[in-house]
Amino acid sequence: MTIELPKPALLPEGVAPDAYEVAIDAFREAIGSEHVHLDGELMVELRDAYAWPADDRHWPSAVLQPGSVEEVQAIVRLAAEHGVPLWVNGQGKNLGYGGAAPRLRGSVTINFQRMTRILEVNEELGYVVLEPGTTYYELVDELKARGGAWWPSTPDIGWGSVIGNTSDYGVGYTEFGDHFASIVGLEVVLPSGELLRTGMWASSTATAAHAHPRGFGPDVTGLFGQSNLGIITKMAKKLSPRPERYVALRFRVQRDEDIAPLVDATRELLLEGTLRNIPVIGGILGTAAMRAPRHEWFEGRITDEQYRATMQKLGMGWWNLRAALYGPTGVVEAQLERCREVLTAAVPDGEFSFLEAAGDEVDAEHFPLHPDRVQAGLPSQGLLESIKWRNPDGGHLEFSPVAPATGAEALKLGGLVRDVMEEYGLDFWPSICVFGRSMVYLCVGNFDHSDEAAIENMYDYYEAAIRRLGAEGYPIYRGHLRGMDAAQDQFDWNDHAYRRFVERLKDALDPAGVLSPGKQGIWPARYRSGR
Amino acid sequence: MTIELPKPALLPEGVAPDAYEVAIDAFREAIGSEHVHLDGELMVELRDAYAWPADDRHWPSAVLQPGSVEEVQAIVRLAAEHGVPLWVNGQGKNLGYGGAAPRLRGSVTINFQRMTRILEVNEELGYVVLEPGTTYYELVDELKARGGAWWPSTPDIGWGSVIGNTSDYGVGYTEFGDHFASIVGLEVVLPSGELLRTGMWASSTATAAHAHPRGFGPDVTGLFGQSNLGIITKMAKKLSPRPERYVALRFRVQRDEDIAPLVDATRELLLEGTLRNIPVIGGILGTAAMRAPRHEWFEGRITDEQYRATMQKLGMGWWNLRAALYGPTGVVEAQLERCREVLTAAVPDGEFSFLEAAGDEVDAEHFPLHPDRVQAGLPSQGLLESIKWRNPDGGHLEFSPVAPATGAEALKLGGLVRDVMEEYGLDFWPSICVFGRSMVYLCVGNFDHSDEAAIENMYDYYEAAIRRLGAEGYPIYRGHLRGMDAAQDQFDWNDHAYRRFVERLKDALDPAGVLSPGKQGIWPARYRSGR
Repeated sequence: MTIELPKPALLPEGVAPDAYEVAIDAFREAIGSEHVHLDGELMVELRDAYAWPADDRHWPSAVLQPGSVEEVQAIVRLAAEHGVPLWVNGQGKNLGYGGAAPRLRGSVTINFQRMTRILEVNEELGYVVLEPGTTYYELVDELKARGGAWWPSTPDIGWGSVIGNTSDYGVGYTEFGDHFASIVGLEVVLPSGELLRTGMWASSTATAAHAHPRGFGPDVTGLFGQSNLGIITKMAKKLSPRPERYVALRFRVQRDEDIAPLVDATRELLLEGTLRNIPVIGGILGTAAMRAPRHEWFEGRITDEQYRATMQKLGMGWWNLRAALYGPTGVVEAQLERCREVLTAAVPDGEFSFLEAAGDEVDAEHFPLHPDRVQAGLPSQGLLESIKWRNPDGGHLEFSPVAPATGAEALKLGGLVRDVMEEYGLDFWPSICVFGRSMVYLCVGNFDHSDEAAIENMYDYYEAAIRRLGAEGYPIYRGHLRGMDAAQDQFDWNDHAYRRFVERLKDALDPAGVLSPGKQGIWPARYRSGR
Repeated sequence: MTIELPKPALLPEGVAPDAYEVAIDAFREAIGSEHVHLDGELMVELRDAYAWPADDRHWPSAVLQPGSVEEVQAIVRLAAEHGVPLWVNGQGKNLGYGGAAPRLRGSVTINFQRMTRILEVNEELGYVVLEPGTTYYELVDELKARGGAWWPSTPDIGWGSVIGNTSDYGVGYTEFGDHFASIVGLEVVLPSGELLRTGMWASSTATAAHAHPRGFGPDVTGLFGQSNLGIITKMAKKLSPRPERYVALRFRVQRDEDIAPLVDATRELLLEGTLRNIPVIGGILGTAAMRAPRHEWFEGRITDEQYRATMQKLGMGWWNLRAALYGPTGVVEAQLERCREVLTAAVPDGEFSFLEAAGDEVDAEHFPLHPDRVQAGLPSQGLLESIKWRNPDGGHLEFSPVAPATGAEALKLGGLVRDVMEEYGLDFWPSICVFGRSMVYLCVGNFDHSDEAAIENMYDYYEAAIRRLGAEGYPIYRGHLRGMDAAQDQFDWNDHAYRRFVERLKDALDPAGVLSPGKQGIWPARYRSGR
């Protein structure tokens, strides 16, 4: 389907055409006309890839590509001056959550494809300092080129920007898989255009600028996660030392109800420190989808019998745990035995297996499958195949509620999510990331993107799932544009004290209300009068 | 020396006597007259224990002891209404950093000795929810009474409140020794009197309220560390599972310059994950001071020869590392071997030793010395003995600069600190807490508290050390009242962008400027006009 750009361009809500024209001219002056896009390929690329093409609810009116921090400051100051709402992304990926598209129709998008430098790799302390557009692939390549002594943590797919993914609370699968927690210093352009640095980096001299968890006084790092309070222009992140030994282990269980002891055993291994990464417990649909489209496996709603038959064809379990071990050989061997002991005690007929290699041998030869490599910080594009499950023109939207990492909660939450997904005709496609005390019960929502009704059904399901699961005690940790308000509504304690607090900060820091209005359900005064 | 209370009471700066009287009456009405103290023992207890007794620069004018969150809210609202500055402490300990005393003379202190409940211990997920006055000893006792399946992380001395210590970035010695990082949910009274809960706890229904690292949108937890932006009234913190095996290990090296390879080896063990706690590398003065006062060991400045002789008498190294291992027996044994291997490779003639026991046998019988127990979360009052080093009426003040955890930095920073300490006639008394990528190079400043000149000398040294070491790249992570402005001055990047940013938040959240003015060098508009 051809995408037609509106002419004249969309205008952001509350901005008069004349004022908008003046602002665009000012942006051109500030960063160069060639970096101000009102139409063309980039405008198409930076839409929500999985929305119905003609659905303009989240279209930007323009895209700006600054080339320096100073240009970002200039853009922010001009936006405030002219009252033009901005939206920010890194590379413009994050497709399962709405991609580069703005929450507020007609916002002017700042995209960081021109700012992709790796500013520092510290090989003594193990950290890297990045610009907001640097992709995971670029980081992986740079670390490899330097000899591979340090590993990053990455999501499955590596085309997105590290800062974009990290600031959206992206999840990877190493010891630093909780990406936001691995930050050791931010540089931020505030809505005023001023520059801030966080933690020890707020000192111009600090030798531990990227080594210590925080500075002196309140730690403001967290303010810039899933945030419209500032634009991150530099980030320092921890890296992991390449281990002497790397083990990717798997444990497959045969029955649906085995999830309960499996989650409890995984939590035990994490809390005692034997496992230090973010293990994943998944079903079989991801693997099935990598091999063939849905119609070759299933017809209609997936019954337990069909599921079991497919699981056996794939040689998988009903639930499949993957985890990894990193460290000196002797320690890793002892940890591997401990994992085997705890997991097989929990589910005696579960199937324990592993692949291992020296840390400098982790590659596609030793670990042919992506899940065994990504736990060593090696992303791939492979998973994109699975989006073709229902149609070669497929889409996905992730619903990701959070629960305590207990077997009882896994059973209860799993049942609730399955019900709501099947009610909307979707496949139950879980991929549970176990953080230790909590789990992100991520459910892939796969749909036929060639069918407008299927897309609308997905949005309906998404908001219903957020509200129904939220009421049961399972808010989401990260959200698609379409569910941000519903997701924020779940944080309702004391008449939404959290939202009211962040909005007070928002109004103080961004009185013009121009930076990413509506992000994560936080609206500036200018746009929330109707609520 | 008898301490005389001023009559009439001190007034806080900028508050008229009449307005103050009205405010005190309102506080009495709100929390009961018996909990509003204008004189008496409590007023003496909640001074800076190590200031010169007649030095009133940090005296409070009154102490309030609320009994509930509602009473805290009432106090804050009344303070804003009447313009009366407040100051907040837990139990009123933290003596090495100024104790309960307020930064601003005459502030009204809120003390939490009446709010000491343990609200929840979750033995499935491993966390505890506390009130702001609960002490470490109370927490330790409660966990023991429940069977000891979960261990806390504690500082050396356990009489202080968990929330007070944690919110001041207190350090312990377990896997959760970075106490602030182990928070999983805060309840906060804002300067407006409103209540806020953070993270997943901001949802009234969230099952993972104290299990997941953060919620949806910006994480505001960090705003309440070393903060005057709110008063923490409840905190959830992670606990560690009692391990099957516990090992307290030590490594002693014979030469001053051995600190360099020792720090590098410790960092390597931490970054590879073999060590998971916060190890400490110390000299010998702490141990010497536990046995006898200074004059029995040294005369005048401590020379290298005297130091070596004393070190040999004590059977210690020039530098002494302690660390701990926790986990399943097989894993811990492999980790112990790895520690021995890495440490003895770094300093071949270093002396490696350890004590070990089952996790349920960690007590004074199996581990006679405090340093071996505190790494298992068992605090004691023993260290207080060491304060008598120069006089039975002794005092201490900690200078705690932060550096990258490298051998080269340890050599350089150690030399600089030693110079400044000896210049002021102080003993160089380091106790280095190794966080992994960084180290807190804590130096005990021990002085004769019966001598006013010695105390003033200590303050002079403290500010000089903060400024001199700050200029060299080593800001402090935590500070005594007397050094808070100097410490904040070190965070100077972009014309003190960090301080200006936090002050903007301060003015937005606390327009009356009443909550803890000057804490960590952050002043409300009302008091910073002179700067």
